[in-house]
Amino acid sequence: MVSSSGVRIKELRRTYGFEEVAIVPGDVTTNPELSVTNLKIGPYQFTTPVLASAMDAIVDPNFAGLMARLGGLGVMNLEGAYTRYEDPYAALADVSNAPKEGVTEVLQRVYAEPLKDHLIAQRIKEVKATGAVCAVSVTPQNAKRLSPIAVEAGADIIVVQSTVTTARHISNSYHGLRFSELMPLISVPVVVGNCVTTSAALELMEQGIDGLLVGVGPGAACTTRDVTGVGVPQVSATLDVAAARDEFVERGGKYVAVITDGGIRTGGDLCKAIAAGADGVMIGTPFAQTFEAPGKGFNWGMASPHPALPRGTRINVGAVASLEQVLFGPSHRTDGTQNLIGALKISMSMVGAQTIEEFHEKAELVVAPTIATEGKSFQRAGRI
Amino acid sequence: MVSSSGVRIKELRRTYGFEEVAIVPGDVTTNPELSVTNLKIGPYQFTTPVLASAMDAIVDPNFAGLMARLGGLGVMNLEGAYTRYEDPYAALADVSNAPKEGVTEVLQRVYAEPLKDHLIAQRIKEVKATGAVCAVSVTPQNAKRLSPIAVEAGADIIVVQSTVTTARHISNSYHGLRFSELMPLISVPVVVGNCVTTSAALELMEQGIDGLLVGVGPGAACTTRDVTGVGVPQVSATLDVAAARDEFVERGGKYVAVITDGGIRTGGDLCKAIAAGADGVMIGTPFAQTFEAPGKGFNWGMASPHPALPRGTRINVGAVASLEQVLFGPSHRTDGTQNLIGALKISMSMVGAQTIEEFHEKAELVVAPTIATEGKSFQRAGRI
Amino acid sequence: MVSSSGVRIKELRRTYGFEEVAIVPGDVTTNPELSVTNLKIGPYQFTTPVLASAMDAIVDPNFAGLMARLGGLGVMNLEGAYTRYEDPYAALADVSNAPKEGVTEVLQRVYAEPLKDHLIAQRIKEVKATGAVCAVSVTPQNAKRLSPIAVEAGADIIVVQSTVTTARHISNSYHGLRFSELMPLISVPVVVGNCVTTSAALELMEQGIDGLLVGVGPGAACTTRDVTGVGVPQVSATLDVAAARDEFVERGGKYVAVITDGGIRTGGDLCKAIAAGADGVMIGTPFAQTFEAPGKGFNWGMASPHPALPRGTRINVGAVASLEQVLFGPSHRTDGTQNLIGALKISMSMVGAQTIEEFHEKAELVVAPTIATEGKSFQRAGRI
Amino acid sequence: MVSSSGVRIKELRRTYGFEEVAIVPGDVTTNPELSVTNLKIGPYQFTTPVLASAMDAIVDPNFAGLMARLGGLGVMNLEGAYTRYEDPYAALADVSNAPKEGVTEVLQRVYAEPLKDHLIAQRIKEVKATGAVCAVSVTPQNAKRLSPIAVEAGADIIVVQSTVTTARHISNSYHGLRFSELMPLISVPVVVGNCVTTSAALELMEQGIDGLLVGVGPGAACTTRDVTGVGVPQVSATLDVAAARDEFVERGGKYVAVITDGGIRTGGDLCKAIAAGADGVMIGTPFAQTFEAPGKGFNWGMASPHPALPRGTRINVGAVASLEQVLFGPSHRTDGTQNLIGALKISMSMVGAQTIEEFHEKAELVVAPTIATEGKSFQRAGRI
Repeated sequence: MVSSSGVRIKELRRTYGFEEVAIVPGDVTTNPELSVTNLKIGPYQFTTPVLASAMDAIVDPNFAGLMARLGGLGVMNLEGAYTRYEDPYAALADVSNAPKEGVTEVLQRVYAEPLKDHLIAQRIKEVKATGAVCAVSVTPQNAKRLSPIAVEAGADIIVVQSTVTTARHISNSYHGLRFSELMPLISVPVVVGNCVTTSAALELMEQGIDGLLVGVGPGAACTTRDVTGVGVPQVSATLDVAAARDEFVERGGKYVAVITDGGIRTGGDLCKAIAAGADGVMIGTPFAQTFEAPGKGFNWGMASPHPALPRGTRINVGAVASLEQVLFGPSHRTDGTQNLIGALKISMSMVGAQTIEEFHEKAELVVAPTIATEGKSFQRAGRI
Repeated sequence: MVSSSGVRIKELRRTYGFEEVAIVPGDVTTNPELSVTNLKIGPYQFTTPVLASAMDAIVDPNFAGLMARLGGLGVMNLEGAYTRYEDPYAALADVSNAPKEGVTEVLQRVYAEPLKDHLIAQRIKEVKATGAVCAVSVTPQNAKRLSPIAVEAGADIIVVQSTVTTARHISNSYHGLRFSELMPLISVPVVVGNCVTTSAALELMEQGIDGLLVGVGPGAACTTRDVTGVGVPQVSATLDVAAARDEFVERGGKYVAVITDGGIRTGGDLCKAIAAGADGVMIGTPFAQTFEAPGKGFNWGMASPHPALPRGTRINVGAVASLEQVLFGPSHRTDGTQNLIGALKISMSMVGAQTIEEFHEKAELVVAPTIATEGKSFQRAGRI
Repeated sequence: MVSSSGVRIKELRRTYGFEEVAIVPGDVTTNPELSVTNLKIGPYQFTTPVLASAMDAIVDPNFAGLMARLGGLGVMNLEGAYTRYEDPYAALADVSNAPKEGVTEVLQRVYAEPLKDHLIAQRIKEVKATGAVCAVSVTPQNAKRLSPIAVEAGADIIVVQSTVTTARHISNSYHGLRFSELMPLISVPVVVGNCVTTSAALELMEQGIDGLLVGVGPGAACTTRDVTGVGVPQVSATLDVAAARDEFVERGGKYVAVITDGGIRTGGDLCKAIAAGADGVMIGTPFAQTFEAPGKGFNWGMASPHPALPRGTRINVGAVASLEQVLFGPSHRTDGTQNLIGALKISMSMVGAQTIEEFHEKAELVVAPTIATEGKSFQRAGRI
Repeated sequence: MVSSSGVRIKELRRTYGFEEVAIVPGDVTTNPELSVTNLKIGPYQFTTPVLASAMDAIVDPNFAGLMARLGGLGVMNLEGAYTRYEDPYAALADVSNAPKEGVTEVLQRVYAEPLKDHLIAQRIKEVKATGAVCAVSVTPQNAKRLSPIAVEAGADIIVVQSTVTTARHISNSYHGLRFSELMPLISVPVVVGNCVTTSAALELMEQGIDGLLVGVGPGAACTTRDVTGVGVPQVSATLDVAAARDEFVERGGKYVAVITDGGIRTGGDLCKAIAAGADGVMIGTPFAQTFEAPGKGFNWGMASPHPALPRGTRINVGAVASLEQVLFGPSHRTDGTQNLIGALKISMSMVGAQTIEEFHEKAELVVAPTIATEGKSFQRAGRI
């Protein structure tokens, strides 16, 4: 763009979130029964392309086992309450029972307790005992120290995750993670996140990773955007990172699983993420709302306890359905929050896709903002 | 679009709904008395270009007769309560009387009752007895079985309708409908829906159909979009399908009636649909709000009873006017919900169109979003 | 635009309303005292470029006199209560006192009383007695009959106004107005409206008119758009008609005053209309809110009494300030609804314009949507 | 743009505010501890790139001292209560205690008291006594008279500020400021504002100034836009003025500090302003909300007391945190209103910038509107 006085001004690209796009039906339709929804991460294949977020209120060893039985993958946080406390449920109860106005302080106190290496091994063994593939999450700064302990204890997938993770991190302390130093230490697939651009994704893929989590400041209300201004809406972020994945394969690299993480609330959101190019999704709050989640109707982000700059807080999400209902129905709600996989299969059938790969190829997304209108409630009764 | 690292990214087209566009007045105006609003479907001509949706709460044989007397067409659902129950009104009352929290279960139970072939014939005869052209709706999976029964019983128009219907449906069961197998079985005009793209519309037109229903997930609040992410706003969908109709005629095909179905609440919506290229519209909720509708102030979508993934629910719309008032006034409301045909005639007159064909040619649509402003209520008094 | 199947689809132009644009300050600023705001209609010059709408609740002979004393122009409706009733104030009181739910019927009844020719002459004489330039408004269907009577009685400016008025109106009755027949009958300046496009404006200018009212369905909430779908947001409409005026002058025609009519609530709206190219504005509701308005705190549109398709209703706007305060302050409110001319002079000074002609040249408009934000109330305190 | 009748119509450029953009994370990340946030104005360097607005409810000598101790700069208004009253706190209390409906009149009365030259000298000495760099603000009309007095009394930086200030102001009175006459009178750095375009900024830079305040009618709710229609959203304004600064340097001029002034409420807003090219920001309301602000929980704009056209009013913002908490935390809130500098350092680290100059280079902004969604509150719990 050139200003009226002939000076060049930075141009701004338009990006899109879930609530601004829709999927166009195809020229061919299929029966939903034909839809196959497999996700592959390294050697592991999941029939349900859904990961549960590594949040204390969601994934404990029991929940990880349940995710596995339902075809998906629960990721356990190795730096949360489970590896700080012999009895983590007492710590979770402290958070849940804290009065609303003092909850940030309680979170800050609970997470000040040091990590205990023996609990890392113990929790991983508890996950493995359920028969599940065991995925655990560490932060970049602790990745080199904790990953070998986790792999030794039996972890099958290491997830290295922070708000923004890049292949090149500059630091003047021990915190700076070099993937070139990390990768030789561990023999299992590595999933890294989070990331939102083509260029950063390509650099991370070149490190030899197996999966990439997409999402920084997703969702209109995510406080990372309020606090730091940083974030990219999830549909655009997924389109960009998926383009990097396809480019990487074209350049001779391996197929890296792209997993959209954050902001997914409904079947519609999930379908749009996958239509935009994701191989799978990571889900938080909708799983915190299940009867089986250890948060018992509460949830909080892993940045919420940050001592100086807490981003996010504990919220009361309620426990409203079983995990099986959320994933496979039957649904007693019409807002898209239950039977996510049923919704995905129907969405795929409406664009004539029998596999997620075909869905990537055939699904056209259009910009179609949701506008609140007075007539809204009346339209709900239309033939759908 | 090309990302900063030179990788191509899918581009997203902007689409528009009713609330985002407006019709530009023309250089010539006419007297509204000169406006002729005929709709032709096969050999049948309707002076009122409006179809009533095939919903149980709207069209029973009596309502179909009333629509005919007023120049339009009511479509009766052959797979709803009327063909499952000798006394359908008791079933409708069960739905209306169900407590709000249990209504999805009641809907699921009511529609679990099997279809009865003899009731199909009986209901068609009841419609014919009113003197109306009899249009009936079937789903693609039942079309081959039910259509011949319906035609045999006297049905004049067959509507094959599901959320998304294409000329090529892939299935591994008996459900897959081939139009090439269906069309020879029936001798009456066929209307198919729903559809939202130029390409899918062209393929359907090549099957020899007479009308096409436009609309998948219309309206901001339609739960098909919440649940599956699939949908295209109605103005863009109508522009695209109307372009297919014109292209089909140019290629030597017959003129296929394009009927915008869903999301129309006001005269303004109706006018915009027709300005965008529709030959007629299909209306649901505004007709469920008439005194004559069998839903007695309630309405529900035909996907609401879906056992695993209900999309839509029963809503209390209220019975607020007669069908004649809704179509022809006199209006006692200023929000555009009454005297829809009077509104269409005035709209046509403001662009100087005496026929719907001229309206298609002369009406320019512009993007003019409705933005909620504080001053809203004050502006209502302006000279209009 | 070309669809994916290679078929051309109508493209939609984006249009803008007041709430979506802002004026960019200039490279030169001036003292507001230097701002001159003259409006010329034919031989008449007004120091206040504001017309009061021809609505019964706003302009009676007394109000027209007051407008003149303040430098502007009040337009009296020749087809309203003043020319139907010897005592119009009793009729106005009937409307004001009607219960909310029955007001449309009362409006329909009040305006069913026939027009009386002798009252036309009498009202015009009452306006003239105040010393004001007398402007009166007639509808196109009555223009040929009423205009000569009005001119004979002393009217100085004839305003021919309906929702949409074009140079070519097709009719099969006596209603169709030909300007070629009308213009020879009257010797005074003619203002015509309403109009929103360059092409229609050019054709009307070729009829020899002196002013053009801009605005069809302005404002987000105007019910003409709800009812008929027809309307163009005011900033785009004004830009287009102003372009026609400039083009007409370039082709050798006379300078026709462009007057933006409708949707103006604040000084900001007024400034944007003029920045977009208007020579003046016509204002309704803000004047209905003055102590001097005969509606005594109520207002209603002249299409509200329409027997079959009422568009608009009576609203309670309240009487909150004197007309002088609204036009010239001092303001006791900070929302822009008072001291409209003071605001215009400051706005002109911020782009360095000393005349409205310079304002047209120098004012750049940008698209700058007003987005409701949580922090809204806090921002109000900023340095402004 | 060309209309359908071939006439050229003005095109409107899209501009953006804080709530419509987001910062894209970089390909390299750094540790936040490495982020250096220096701001230079003339010879003065500030480690905290934040100025406190010259509003009476915010900056008194004590607050200016506190800002200095925290690395920033408080600007004291030389034309407010502090230089009109020996005991300004009594005047402030009058404003705070005024009943809501009468506050505009109280403001108008309080600020009708004449300025007193001896108080100017006294207040500057009070600021200097705290050890702070002393910045004072004057309006253009008083700049030539007051600036020498201020410099004489020890002021280190003169801020010449009005709603819109240009290098060329046309006036027929003594009010017109010529910078060519002002600059020789004073030997200290001059900051001028406000300004929003490349061209006006370039002209001001050519006057030899050291800093430029960006912002006219910022924020969705700023009443300058309501009242006069004039304003440019802050992100676009900052991009444009920063482009002028870079152009000016390229032409051989000095580096002029660009300071975004107005509409900044959260760390995210601050980060976006700097990402858009600002060297620093000026903050109002968030500082009025500190325990140390003399407004004691109230705030009002300096245009609020305008006798004829008040823009802005007194608002109750509450006193919610210490200034140190707002700037450096620790934060007890998750909405971005506390620890603004901590947020900036994290934001810089996420794009791999160690200095503000690097942040300008590396931070990409995208258009990413905040859309209110029903699911909003649930998303707050996501991993951030």
